[in-house]
Amino acid sequence: MSTGRLEAFSDGVIAVIITIMVLELKVPSGHDIQALAPSLPVFVAYVVSFIFVGIYWNNHHHLLHATDRIDGRSMWANLHLLFWLSLVPWATGWIGQNSTERLPTALYGFVLLMAAIAYTLLQQSLIACNGPQSEVARATGNDFKGKISIVCCLAGIAAGFFIPWLADLLYAVLGAIWFVPDRRIERIERTETRHDDPTPEAV
Amino acid sequence: MSTGRLEAFSDGVIAVIITIMVLELKVPSGHDIQALAPSLPVFVAYVVSFIFVGIYWNNHHHLLHATDRIDGRSMWANLHLLFWLSLVPWATGWIGQNSTERLPTALYGFVLLMAAIAYTLLQQSLIACNGPQSEVARATGNDFKGKISIVCCLAGIAAGFFIPWLADLLYAVLGAIWFVPDRRIERIERTETRHDDPTPEAV
Amino acid sequence: MSTGRLEAFSDGVIAVIITIMVLELKVPSGHDIQALAPSLPVFVAYVVSFIFVGIYWNNHHHLLHATDRIDGRSMWANLHLLFWLSLVPWATGWIGQNSTERLPTALYGFVLLMAAIAYTLLQQSLIACNGPQSEVARATGNDFKGKISIVCCLAGIAAGFFIPWLADLLYAVLGAIWFVPDRRIERIERTETRHDDPTPEAV
Amino acid sequence: MSTGRLEAFSDGVIAVIITIMVLELKVPSGHDIQALAPSLPVFVAYVVSFIFVGIYWNNHHHLLHATDRIDGRSMWANLHLLFWLSLVPWATGWIGQNSTERLPTALYGFVLLMAAIAYTLLQQSLIACNGPQSEVARATGNDFKGKISIVCCLAGIAAGFFIPWLADLLYAVLGAIWFVPDRRIERIERTETRHDDPTPEAV
Repeated sequence: MSTGRLEAFSDGVIAVIITIMVLELKVPSGHDIQALAPSLPVFVAYVVSFIFVGIYWNNHHHLLHATDRIDGRSMWANLHLLFWLSLVPWATGWIGQNSTERLPTALYGFVLLMAAIAYTLLQQSLIACNGPQSEVARATGNDFKGKISIVCCLAGIAAGFFIPWLADLLYAVLGAIWFVPDRRIERIERTETRHDDPTPEAV
Repeated sequence: MSTGRLEAFSDGVIAVIITIMVLELKVPSGHDIQALAPSLPVFVAYVVSFIFVGIYWNNHHHLLHATDRIDGRSMWANLHLLFWLSLVPWATGWIGQNSTERLPTALYGFVLLMAAIAYTLLQQSLIACNGPQSEVARATGNDFKGKISIVCCLAGIAAGFFIPWLADLLYAVLGAIWFVPDRRIERIERTETRHDDPTPEAV
Repeated sequence: MSTGRLEAFSDGVIAVIITIMVLELKVPSGHDIQALAPSLPVFVAYVVSFIFVGIYWNNHHHLLHATDRIDGRSMWANLHLLFWLSLVPWATGWIGQNSTERLPTALYGFVLLMAAIAYTLLQQSLIACNGPQSEVARATGNDFKGKISIVCCLAGIAAGFFIPWLADLLYAVLGAIWFVPDRRIERIERTETRHDDPTPEAV
Repeated sequence: MSTGRLEAFSDGVIAVIITIMVLELKVPSGHDIQALAPSLPVFVAYVVSFIFVGIYWNNHHHLLHATDRIDGRSMWANLHLLFWLSLVPWATGWIGQNSTERLPTALYGFVLLMAAIAYTLLQQSLIACNGPQSEVARATGNDFKGKISIVCCLAGIAAGFFIPWLADLLYAVLGAIWFVPDRRIERIERTETRHDDPTPEAV
């Protein structure tokens, strides 16, 4: 099986997730600054979650781009990732309305943790399907960032129960770690492109 | 007509269905475990429905992959399937809020039953359009799983009116039956791929 | 410009329209047949609107399939059609909650009328762009069905203000007229396919 | 990296944005003209925002069509544009319910301003990635319209705080400026098409 329709479906789901999240940002009932004020923490939570979902889309794009074939296991691993991402709007709505509270902060970290684990499982299933010498296996390497993320989320969940602002800080660090796309995949892709596509940079 | 745009449209509809379902999972009004508790049965219903819609997407993917051409009848058979799938978020919301009640449990089974029947009709329309010697006809075979599903849903509806937990068990069995994608289609596809695509497993 | 991305965007918008319409079907607040009863007229309205949007998707698919190129005018004509289709969920929700009332019935017809006019304008813009000898021009012909539809909607709006059930009947007739896809386009497509694709029916 | 999946994802997000916006248009609680009346300003706001999002989709289509390759920076520039567009439904809902009020009018202009800035940044990132001699660089030129838009939005925000109807007028002027797609890109595309595609106008 080729990756085409898996990418199309994932694009569709992630596009809906990233967009319906804005429905948690309710239209203020008044028309002055006092009416707008309660929306501010929800807005901040929306910005952070938009970045996280954007990061996942970016990395998913890179990962699938380096993949030649998929099987039944990787299709379910992909659905598993989409499941946890689909809970991000809900977790965002809850932390947005209770930004200094412990349980919403910890649960937000839990959803991020499960998404990070699901992404790692997807990666492993793709490597298993494409073989240890495949482009996706070489590009992923020892997956240092994936391991750091899981540690970061676990620390965020623990911190959420005691010092919510520390958890928020850890989520910000996590965002910064993933913001930069996987250099190794990009480098390999660039090399491939040079072989495949003789078009010079200036047209 | 080729299957390209039918697949794209179905992907879009199923992607929206699987994602807006999460809107039934309301953001809790408080911030502690007591506020979160009522969301638990809705969450369980969401997980189960996510798996069912995922199964349909997976099987739909396999079915269309084995299909060469579509006609007007199969386009309507496909819309008919999407119609019943589009009721899954509503049925999920109702059973989630009334998980031990009879009518919501039976109706959830009814929506699954109609989706199973619609899938069978889609399969038949594709076989009629592609001919009895086509790949899709050979791959589908006697459709044992489809027949079992319909029996399972009927039993679930009946059980729902008397012993709701038995109905829930039958829906779980149904999920397990469909979880494994059609081996025969996969086998044929694998054989086709071997002919078409000379790329060895290790790149 | 080719039609690829216009089709993809239209598929996306129509997929979202046809799916978010189900959000008008509220989860009942109770768990027995009395709680479910008020949902019935909304469900009927949902079924009818699903069929109408399905018809538009089907016809849009056929129309664009027969089209070679698009220009700025046809892109806006397409957005204009999508605008009126996007109002269908709202009109469905209103007629569903007030199925025997005059204004909602007439307004539902108005939205259908504007969609029918928008479809006709899209058709004309595509013929203008592809030339009077193009496949799309020959396939569309004198557009008898388009003219009948507009008459049907106008009659439905008028009837809605006096005898709502007569309007509902006219909308049903309209659905039946459009249900059958344009035979002439299908015939031409079949002929084209025979030339392009030497695959015999039985594979 | 090619532009294919970026276009597909952007199409998906913009399709959801343009469609969920209609959810701000609530189903009236009554069934007569008095019940419908409060929906009118929200409807007008919906029409205007639909046109703006349609303009962005149109221009995005033209821009990406003239683009050969994308990099990590342009992927994030694209997500940044989608972020501000995703706030349009919220801003539309607020200005629709408070059409003569200052803060909602100014904030609507602010969202348009940020989307215009984001579009300019996306353009610059694509030119940086494709080189100063690329088709996208030549097609964009000195981007007079982009600069005028930003001035128009700034004036609209300022006017919003003092004379809301003047702000509304400025937003209408802005819509008119962007309504016409970039002639230069269209001309270059037409020239390219003539070279690539020898099909004569009449088929």
